Amino acid sequence: MGSPVISLLTDFGLRDPSAAICRGVILDLAPEAQVIDISHEVRKYAIRDGALLLWCALPYLPVGFHVGVVDPGVGTARRPIAIMVERGDVLIGPDNGLLVPAAERLGGILEVRELAEPAYRRATVSASFHGRDIFAPAAAHLARGVPFASLGPALDPAGLARPNWPAPRRTVAGLETIVLYCDTFGNAKFGALASELAAALGPLESGDPLVVRLGRGSSARLDDEAAHVEPVTWQLTFGAVPPGATVLYEDSYGRLCLADNQGDAVSRLGLVEDQPAVIARRAPSGR
Amino acid sequence: MGSPVISLLTDFGLRDPSAAICRGVILDLAPEAQVIDISHEVRKYAIRDGALLLWCALPYLPVGFHVGVVDPGVGTARRPIAIMVERGDVLIGPDNGLLVPAAERLGGILEVRELAEPAYRRATVSASFHGRDIFAPAAAHLARGVPFASLGPALDPAGLARPNWPAPRRTVAGLETIVLYCDTFGNAKFGALASELAAALGPLESGDPLVVRLGRGSSARLDDEAAHVEPVTWQLTFGAVPPGATVLYEDSYGRLCLADNQGDAVSRLGLVEDQPAVIARRAPSGR
Amino acid sequence: MGSPVISLLTDFGLRDPSAAICRGVILDLAPEAQVIDISHEVRKYAIRDGALLLWCALPYLPVGFHVGVVDPGVGTARRPIAIMVERGDVLIGPDNGLLVPAAERLGGILEVRELAEPAYRRATVSASFHGRDIFAPAAAHLARGVPFASLGPALDPAGLARPNWPAPRRTVAGLETIVLYCDTFGNAKFGALASELAAALGPLESGDPLVVRLGRGSSARLDDEAAHVEPVTWQLTFGAVPPGATVLYEDSYGRLCLADNQGDAVSRLGLVEDQPAVIARRAPSGR
Repeated sequence: MGSPVISLLTDFGLRDPSAAICRGVILDLAPEAQVIDISHEVRKYAIRDGALLLWCALPYLPVGFHVGVVDPGVGTARRPIAIMVERGDVLIGPDNGLLVPAAERLGGILEVRELAEPAYRRATVSASFHGRDIFAPAAAHLARGVPFASLGPALDPAGLARPNWPAPRRTVAGLETIVLYCDTFGNAKFGALASELAAALGPLESGDPLVVRLGRGSSARLDDEAAHVEPVTWQLTFGAVPPGATVLYEDSYGRLCLADNQGDAVSRLGLVEDQPAVIARRAPSGR
Repeated sequence: MGSPVISLLTDFGLRDPSAAICRGVILDLAPEAQVIDISHEVRKYAIRDGALLLWCALPYLPVGFHVGVVDPGVGTARRPIAIMVERGDVLIGPDNGLLVPAAERLGGILEVRELAEPAYRRATVSASFHGRDIFAPAAAHLARGVPFASLGPALDPAGLARPNWPAPRRTVAGLETIVLYCDTFGNAKFGALASELAAALGPLESGDPLVVRLGRGSSARLDDEAAHVEPVTWQLTFGAVPPGATVLYEDSYGRLCLADNQGDAVSRLGLVEDQPAVIARRAPSGR
Repeated sequence: MGSPVISLLTDFGLRDPSAAICRGVILDLAPEAQVIDISHEVRKYAIRDGALLLWCALPYLPVGFHVGVVDPGVGTARRPIAIMVERGDVLIGPDNGLLVPAAERLGGILEVRELAEPAYRRATVSASFHGRDIFAPAAAHLARGVPFASLGPALDPAGLARPNWPAPRRTVAGLETIVLYCDTFGNAKFGALASELAAALGPLESGDPLVVRLGRGSSARLDDEAAHVEPVTWQLTFGAVPPGATVLYEDSYGRLCLADNQGDAVSRLGLVEDQPAVIARRAPSGR
């Protein structure tokens, strides 16, 4: 029997004290909890970024209570919720799509509750800091053994908000997807999985020549004449090519990724989240 | 009986190892301590920023030993101190004003000691890293049960340095205050509390039209012809208005705050700490 | 008997979830571990930066299992290793020089193992995230009591990669060294120790006039006509001079450092890592 694990993911930033306050509220209520910060530097208001990071991280964390707060609608009618999933975790946060992809990746949603019970909130709930006043206390009370069903009324899982996370599409031009996330190394994760690219283009081998056609910015259209065409090769890892060379690879979560080895492809290509992309095979370079 | 709680707030930055070294020194002396990082990204040398963040955070943390290090005078004659407060906490850091507002918010100062006792410092004290050599060890020794009075001679609380944190003033033009802190969302916290604005202008209702007159930069004067005049409405939360709209509201700590909903008012208006502001009612917009 | 201590230092960045995933993997295997984040904001791919930060930090951390991941060669032939040192710690990471300076500072290398044993890796090892799949699991298994020798075959310590960390040289012009690291305060740490400067120039007293001759950029030569000549004084701490004044001093780790008191010497002088420097005495300023 270890300590109960509580994780935190927010867009609060590490300079401000908000993330530490959530931790303080938890440790005040549940001093035995083991609190893990997943990230507090999620891009401000970027619900899907937060959803992706939870999707990446939670499978590697111990079963626990996971608080996510990227919440541009704080203080409005969006509901505070807790989601129990098949693996045994509970995900806690706003009903705005943040929690759903990770919940599905942990085996799927078993039950959803609205965080309505005043006994498991702070005595005074502010209009702008539900992380402190609703979400962190809910996690701490669950960690102390409060039954899930006590948090509030059951909600229909089918009614939960979902993030703007489009499925890739197979077209005559190739696999159409978007830039889903630009990481701190300057690598771009696409909306498609590597397995989805292989399904569209056939099995991929190291060195296979591919091309990534990129719209200009998040609102661009791919048939725009000025779309950028980036030749790449498929590789198992960026380390397989010389520094500066560009690869398409399967990242360690199974996602399709674009990287410059030891470089910053995001800056070089001006990539932004939601930018459309089509990936296809190309003829090998002449030699 | 939980573990003793020790918190850390510094301007050391998270890239450099200094914050982790303080944590390491603490855990070496007091392995049972629960260490909470409040922030290590305080603006360099900004004593009042640090003071505000402690003022915000400490009421939500468990009673404990709180180390603050924003210390431009390290290695000079300013004294290292520990402050025992009414709530039962001890605040530890330099005597430069950093700790005083939080101490007063935790019920007030009971007793102050100078950290003079060599037994509770590292054997060698450097000239430039008192966090590691004096402050963190003091917290760890207190957490292990060393009596407060053993740290060193008592100091007169009236002689402590105070931060540059001017009280708001009611003038014929409205409530005069300053930009106290610009947070990572681009919201500006003022020196005044929301209750102080209500006392100056009368009770505030959602939608009340107000105006914020802003001097240009931290040294500007408000009667400067080029002062910026920003029309806003009073709201309970930024979420009450459309994205991009500007509100004045009471933040979750009771402070007066200016925000663009899902935007960055600090960048848009070029706000900086110490910038003077006058807040008043205005006639509603024509319709 | 406290909890086993595991520390983490990476260039993963705090926005992405990678550092938290390493922590999660560790706590899943070794829930009783005390995990200390040294830094996850090491400059991307900067092996020597990481090596310096470990060199600075580890002497102040409890004896434990220290994971370092700055690993531009992940997925290539470079070996994953564990180094047992005289103090009793084990350092874990890639064989690229990252771990060696800290290992030597903790009393020297006793034994090295390649992390080859599949039982102490994740079941599936990705090509791009060995922190999660090899290094963090190794630390957790050691913390649980797995014998060091079980990790894999012994390696010859003499064959380990070393970082690009040149020793200072005494020349007729003074002590020749490089800018080794630029910290978040804008202070520059040199490759030389303060004791090495004193050995080259004779004993140093507060106020001694010195000059730092700086090449332009990391590839510059010092005999370049455009080299910058910066007059400084030797001081015990930056606090000994007025704000803005420039000092050379011994930092709290014994290294030679250049700083502007309460300023940012790195930005002002455009300093970069690997920039060559020669430090010498100069005639006092006229008065």
